[in-house]
Amino acid sequence: MVGRSERAAEGVAEWAGDGKSNNERVAEQMTEGVKPEIRRHLENDPFAKSLGIELVEIHEGYAKCAMTVRPEMVNAHGSAHGGALFSLADFAFAVACNSHGRVAVALEVKINYLEAVLPGTRLIAEAKEEALGGRIGLYHLTVTEESGKIVASCHATAYRKKDWFVDK
Amino acid sequence: MVGRSERAAEGVAEWAGDGKSNNERVAEQMTEGVKPEIRRHLENDPFAKSLGIELVEIHEGYAKCAMTVRPEMVNAHGSAHGGALFSLADFAFAVACNSHGRVAVALEVKINYLEAVLPGTRLIAEAKEEALGGRIGLYHLTVTEESGKIVASCHATAYRKKDWFVDK
Amino acid sequence: MVGRSERAAEGVAEWAGDGKSNNERVAEQMTEGVKPEIRRHLENDPFAKSLGIELVEIHEGYAKCAMTVRPEMVNAHGSAHGGALFSLADFAFAVACNSHGRVAVALEVKINYLEAVLPGTRLIAEAKEEALGGRIGLYHLTVTEESGKIVASCHATAYRKKDWFVDK
Amino acid sequence: MVGRSERAAEGVAEWAGDGKSNNERVAEQMTEGVKPEIRRHLENDPFAKSLGIELVEIHEGYAKCAMTVRPEMVNAHGSAHGGALFSLADFAFAVACNSHGRVAVALEVKINYLEAVLPGTRLIAEAKEEALGGRIGLYHLTVTEESGKIVASCHATAYRKKDWFVDK
Repeated sequence: MVGRSERAAEGVAEWAGDGKSNNERVAEQMTEGVKPEIRRHLENDPFAKSLGIELVEIHEGYAKCAMTVRPEMVNAHGSAHGGALFSLADFAFAVACNSHGRVAVALEVKINYLEAVLPGTRLIAEAKEEALGGRIGLYHLTVTEESGKIVASCHATAYRKKDWFVDK
Repeated sequence: MVGRSERAAEGVAEWAGDGKSNNERVAEQMTEGVKPEIRRHLENDPFAKSLGIELVEIHEGYAKCAMTVRPEMVNAHGSAHGGALFSLADFAFAVACNSHGRVAVALEVKINYLEAVLPGTRLIAEAKEEALGGRIGLYHLTVTEESGKIVASCHATAYRKKDWFVDK
Repeated sequence: MVGRSERAAEGVAEWAGDGKSNNERVAEQMTEGVKPEIRRHLENDPFAKSLGIELVEIHEGYAKCAMTVRPEMVNAHGSAHGGALFSLADFAFAVACNSHGRVAVALEVKINYLEAVLPGTRLIAEAKEEALGGRIGLYHLTVTEESGKIVASCHATAYRKKDWFVDK
Repeated sequence: MVGRSERAAEGVAEWAGDGKSNNERVAEQMTEGVKPEIRRHLENDPFAKSLGIELVEIHEGYAKCAMTVRPEMVNAHGSAHGGALFSLADFAFAVACNSHGRVAVALEVKINYLEAVLPGTRLIAEAKEEALGGRIGLYHLTVTEESGKIVASCHATAYRKKDWFVDK
């Protein structure tokens, strides 16, 4: 049993950040690449492949992916299916949160749909790390058309396990 | 320009409910079916079909769907892909929020992942209407294994357009 | 480094559930009370007290709280402030996720606002555990008026620390 | 009743954007101020005032607010209460989404808590418009300590009513 002040001081330090500001972190992640085996492991995603999703770019805490909406990826109203858009975003999220080489799984993802998307449209999803702690990472994602028009946006939490899928 | 008290009195009535309690509504929706053309329209979902998703049950404000996780529906860690689970849940959500015959589109969906799911597992998604207003509907969804074990849960908002996809 | 199949089998077991179905759990939690020192500790919440929030009922994985919207708890449009409604719901969430005696902190909460609420209204928040694992708990909350009309709904994740705030 | 292709073409245009890219919009909003009566109206928020929240900066689609965590704003564990942090963020959100002079109400807000915050800490909340349509606006918010350390992050949807609270 711990007292109130200890808990307050410790805070959520089990999963807390590394003391860097968000801007410092974003600056870093944009300049650092990742080991080739990390990219290889993450690209080997059968569901993403089955939807024709490509991994365009990966840095530590960052991923960019692309997908063209196929005719069969629509819903009953004839627009791109929410599940297809989500799958593209979710893959970018998975790559970004696993980009450190440590196994990370999605805890929760919220997606906001902003525009209907027609079949044939090429979409770009970008995932950026907002915060990274020992157990938890937070990511902000956008899905845009090639024109830059935003069609969906996500805010997602990853849980970082103790395992590494590459040698540490 | 409206004054403060008018606005407060009116509240968010543009998209507000019908004065029924949630329990009254849930009781109703469980006993009412829907017109066959509504079911037919919603079942005709190309992306859901491509994933083998079945519409098991539909009532006003309610849907139950099923999907078996195929070997290609996994992620780089070998578990069922977050996008595949989401797509099943999203289809149940789409059916539930369109079950009234009026065109409804997803505004936002939050999914929480609770357990990893192995390929070959049969999953059931259930969507229940928590609240329904003129413009907005709120839904709670669960994805469970056949044993009843919950593997994911969603909380989702639909935006109801003015159009009806069946004759009113 | 672990292989794909091990990871899939283990899944997210670090924070996974106890194998009980959700219905079994809900049935249990409704009949079990909690130790008096757990209730005492959780009731001693200075911010909740400052807003006049009362803890009405607590069981394992469940809490019911109440608050009357005071004249100063409104926003610029004259309705009950989103922050005030959230604070009521968040307190119910905190009580429910800490009801086991183990320190739990909020990871994320989504709130959906369904109706504007007038000052003077008495509100009830109920938090129910949807799923509980070693590290993670998931909760569904509603805020209703005394008539039963739902005015807000939340879906919230707790992170369970290793510490207990009562003797285990 | 509308056909599939019409609906797809129209998409969610009832609440869709204005065709500007997100970057164009962000660039604009940072340079435009707002009418003094808009600021005056939004600052007159009784609940925010009762918590000592200040409106530091407002532009179209943007707000910055500040609050110092008072001793009574803590939870049972002695850290800043989730409801207090949320209330700060929610006020920044309300200001940003109402900054156009048109009445906007919160539809949903997700908050992620990243670090425990001690009483006495001065916090800054910033709200930025990610997308704006006829009926819907999407906002991304951060709550940081003065050091720049991020302690919470929100992703929030506003519903824009037909009324204006200033002369259009």
